[in-house]
Amino acid sequence: MVAIDIVRKDDGSCEVYAGGGRIPSGKDAVEWAVEAEKRGAGEILLTSKDADGVGQGYDLAITRQIADAVKIPVVASGGAGSLKDFSDAVFEGHADAMLAASLFHFRQLEIMQVKEYLHGMGIPVRLN
Amino acid sequence: MVAIDIVRKDDGSCEVYAGGGRIPSGKDAVEWAVEAEKRGAGEILLTSKDADGVGQGYDLAITRQIADAVKIPVVASGGAGSLKDFSDAVFEGHADAMLAASLFHFRQLEIMQVKEYLHGMGIPVRLN
Repeated sequence: MVAIDIVRKDDGSCEVYAGGGRIPSGKDAVEWAVEAEKRGAGEILLTSKDADGVGQGYDLAITRQIADAVKIPVVASGGAGSLKDFSDAVFEGHADAMLAASLFHFRQLEIMQVKEYLHGMGIPVRLN
Repeated sequence: MVAIDIVRKDDGSCEVYAGGGRIPSGKDAVEWAVEAEKRGAGEILLTSKDADGVGQGYDLAITRQIADAVKIPVVASGGAGSLKDFSDAVFEGHADAMLAASLFHFRQLEIMQVKEYLHGMGIPVRLN
């Protein structure tokens, strides 16, 4: 699994950050995702540093751009704060899976609640 | 997928950090992983904040403790810097998958090189 940490730039494009998300790499997120797939990545974990921990939703635009540009699974990460954020990641962001942490920590949502919601929206999830 | 960001404490235990890895939660990493599984997590992404971006290897001890404590897949994250780090994560850390970013960015290793190495060690990988 290749982690891609991104920060949105003023021009609207997304730059990849290296070194655990600390060092701007100068690389464009979409180009880097395509290159990672070409080099043999099995899966991409795409984390928006801007959205991470904020709880206002995944960065759907870059998730969709990358998910549409590669064939390997893309896991959306950073920003989940509500049930709708998870289904948006699938329907609008075209993500294959979603990562979350904060909202489970602070018990804003229960994991099973998210799974049952997604199941109800017709999204395949493992319920047990 | 539930992300668990951890920091090793002076007493040797690992504390979970919330809010994108910024806020100490007071929770023990192993206990939290077990609770996440109980609550329905499908997979755990375990990131050592200490090891992340350093390239000196995954935190094998906590990876193993958690992988042995839960039945769901555990993805090791933070610290991969050499081929051996990947196989150590499997053999010593009992991880089901490994995440990396920095070393691919800086081209210290190629993704296919890691996969072929793991394959040669008898670890199942998808080679195409």
